[in-house]
Amino acid sequence: MNELEIKGQMAKSASAFLAVASEADKNRALLAMADAIYDNTDYIIKINGGDIAAAKEIGLAEGFIDRLTLTKQRIGAISNGIRQVAELPDPVGTYVSRTKRPNGLEIDKVRVPLGVIGIIYESRPNVTADAAALCLKSGNAVILRGGKESIGTNLALVGIMQEALIKEGFPKGCINLVEDTSRETATALMRLNKYLDVIIPRGGAGLIRSVVENATVPAIETGTGNCHVFVDKYADLSMARDIVINAKTSRPSVCNAEEKLLVHCDIAERFLPAMLKSLHEYGVTVVGDQTVCGLDPEAAPAAEEDWYTEYLDLKIGIKVVDSIEDAIAHINKYGTRHSEAIVTENIPNSTKFLKEVDAAAVYVNASTRFTDGFEFGFGAEIGISTQKIHARGPMGLTELTTTKYLIHGNGQIRE
Amino acid sequence: MNELEIKGQMAKSASAFLAVASEADKNRALLAMADAIYDNTDYIIKINGGDIAAAKEIGLAEGFIDRLTLTKQRIGAISNGIRQVAELPDPVGTYVSRTKRPNGLEIDKVRVPLGVIGIIYESRPNVTADAAALCLKSGNAVILRGGKESIGTNLALVGIMQEALIKEGFPKGCINLVEDTSRETATALMRLNKYLDVIIPRGGAGLIRSVVENATVPAIETGTGNCHVFVDKYADLSMARDIVINAKTSRPSVCNAEEKLLVHCDIAERFLPAMLKSLHEYGVTVVGDQTVCGLDPEAAPAAEEDWYTEYLDLKIGIKVVDSIEDAIAHINKYGTRHSEAIVTENIPNSTKFLKEVDAAAVYVNASTRFTDGFEFGFGAEIGISTQKIHARGPMGLTELTTTKYLIHGNGQIRE
Repeated sequence: MNELEIKGQMAKSASAFLAVASEADKNRALLAMADAIYDNTDYIIKINGGDIAAAKEIGLAEGFIDRLTLTKQRIGAISNGIRQVAELPDPVGTYVSRTKRPNGLEIDKVRVPLGVIGIIYESRPNVTADAAALCLKSGNAVILRGGKESIGTNLALVGIMQEALIKEGFPKGCINLVEDTSRETATALMRLNKYLDVIIPRGGAGLIRSVVENATVPAIETGTGNCHVFVDKYADLSMARDIVINAKTSRPSVCNAEEKLLVHCDIAERFLPAMLKSLHEYGVTVVGDQTVCGLDPEAAPAAEEDWYTEYLDLKIGIKVVDSIEDAIAHINKYGTRHSEAIVTENIPNSTKFLKEVDAAAVYVNASTRFTDGFEFGFGAEIGISTQKIHARGPMGLTELTTTKYLIHGNGQIRE
Repeated sequence: MNELEIKGQMAKSASAFLAVASEADKNRALLAMADAIYDNTDYIIKINGGDIAAAKEIGLAEGFIDRLTLTKQRIGAISNGIRQVAELPDPVGTYVSRTKRPNGLEIDKVRVPLGVIGIIYESRPNVTADAAALCLKSGNAVILRGGKESIGTNLALVGIMQEALIKEGFPKGCINLVEDTSRETATALMRLNKYLDVIIPRGGAGLIRSVVENATVPAIETGTGNCHVFVDKYADLSMARDIVINAKTSRPSVCNAEEKLLVHCDIAERFLPAMLKSLHEYGVTVVGDQTVCGLDPEAAPAAEEDWYTEYLDLKIGIKVVDSIEDAIAHINKYGTRHSEAIVTENIPNSTKFLKEVDAAAVYVNASTRFTDGFEFGFGAEIGISTQKIHARGPMGLTELTTTKYLIHGNGQIRE
């Protein structure tokens, strides 16, 4: 038996245990996991040091190394994150609806765990603990497949969490890590229908494409965000400037960051010069259409491909549009249906934008950066879905459950 | 451009129209479609006659021909079905939640159409009209791909519905039919990510397997039902007999029909002889384990493969189990997670069964035949989902929608 078969069986068996575990027991296990991670801080840092050294040796980028690195403070945050998950309400067992039919059948729709969840992600060890905690709280077993550069740290974290689980009487198979980090095994995980109920890729466009192309397990796409801010002719231009700067520069590497700025032609000459100056002050590289390049000698002409691109960097594409209709059409053509914003003081325009833009989150007069499980008040987040089925936008614990109809009768048969 | 590209573009464009269409306008279009179908009864019967003649000529089975056949009465029922869809409440625009965050952001979660839905189904022309009506009411454009033997009838029905739509000011692309009924084009439809938001296969196990294997568009699996009835040792045996006969024989060709009977060993000798006699009276063929074959000279031994098989016929597999735990383990191993029932007067056992059986619908003391959108009170049904993401069990109009977050701010930026 290969690794996936063994871990699939372990996860499947653990999922039956978790499906009927009480909230109190799950919280006890989570707190034990949080304690164990905290108590093993020094050990984790040591093991993580090996991963970091190897990553540096092969010359990986600074941002990559930063996401891979665990410090005492970051391990404390991971441990606290698990504690916070323990405090969140358990969605399992809650009623979605209760109906009594004319024939006397009582039909209850209740939340139940999905079962076994596969998660494929990059070399960010914090995701290992986060995802494990969210899956456990929602009654799901998990099979984790993290980036190969973090395998040492992930093995340490999962080993520590498994030991804590076993002490609390939970099966080890609640949390599983794929140790073979080859691409072939990642693809095999996407096709492990026998054991997996859903697969969630968390990562860049390449990973998402690979899942769409290869997965036979139902997948929830997350996290690609080519987000736009449209500055309407009725915008408060000072508010617009603050929103653009925040959306673009507060954390350019994340999926809810702004990638494109659309400006109504009627205010372009009034708005853009100061806006462009601000962007340059924040170190943002600009590509743009003819008008933008005419106003900004530093701007390069945008290629068609630019309008599709999620830079995840201090770079922005700017385009002047003739109307709100053009702005909406552009967003619906080039966007990734993640987060889109309009800045306007005009209610018909804000209503039109909210209604016609096809995205998980559509904003009026606020930064796109708020699309996030914590900012939305869910207390946690496993990712941001950019597809339409099952979940759309930030996914909290509820999105890690499905439903089941429980029907009570007293001998009803169908005519 | 090939057919799918043309129809994909038409559907995508129509979906933008439908997404903002009012409920009143959609109902007007639906009533016009219902009228047009009714008014063209003779024409439809004539065209359908051609499909039937061709199907008979190649010797297709009686049940197949029956499902393909439209009569005056059946066309009346199709027309009335569309009228009933017009009367159902429109889920689009309803609020799932409304939250005001401490920073003043107002976050509304509202229902919106999925966009463009692909439906692949067998040679059942009633599905053509049903699916078109449900998709239109829920604001979705649809691309239909029905069985090749019904292509004449489907073309007639879709042509009539499109003409009615156009008269009401709706784009023709709201309802599209794939005219090339080759397998290659069906597979291409499953991979039409550029235009489709979801694909729903309605059909047998072979079609579902093909979608799981080939689809890159998010899919909702429907309709495979290897459903069990477990007669517990605490069962009312007369009730058990009625439920088994109803679940097995009232309509054996549908997915919510019983395929397997599990009987607790303590009551097997008391229950089975009369039960087997009844089943034979209803013309049911029995395969079973050793105990069953010992009690019934007409029963054939069940092969391992039998326990996995959805017969969709007057045939049943019967097994005696040692305990409720064995019954649950058998169901979770061999079942298709559709509909499962226990007959018992013992509350701890019914609670255990409801909790531990992993299926869309779990029944206590009622026939599995009730798993159906109409019986559940949804007023309509596009299919019965046997997967866990997005929708589980009967899917009504709500399950043909997704959600969108609409966020109102007054200049909020993220720290």
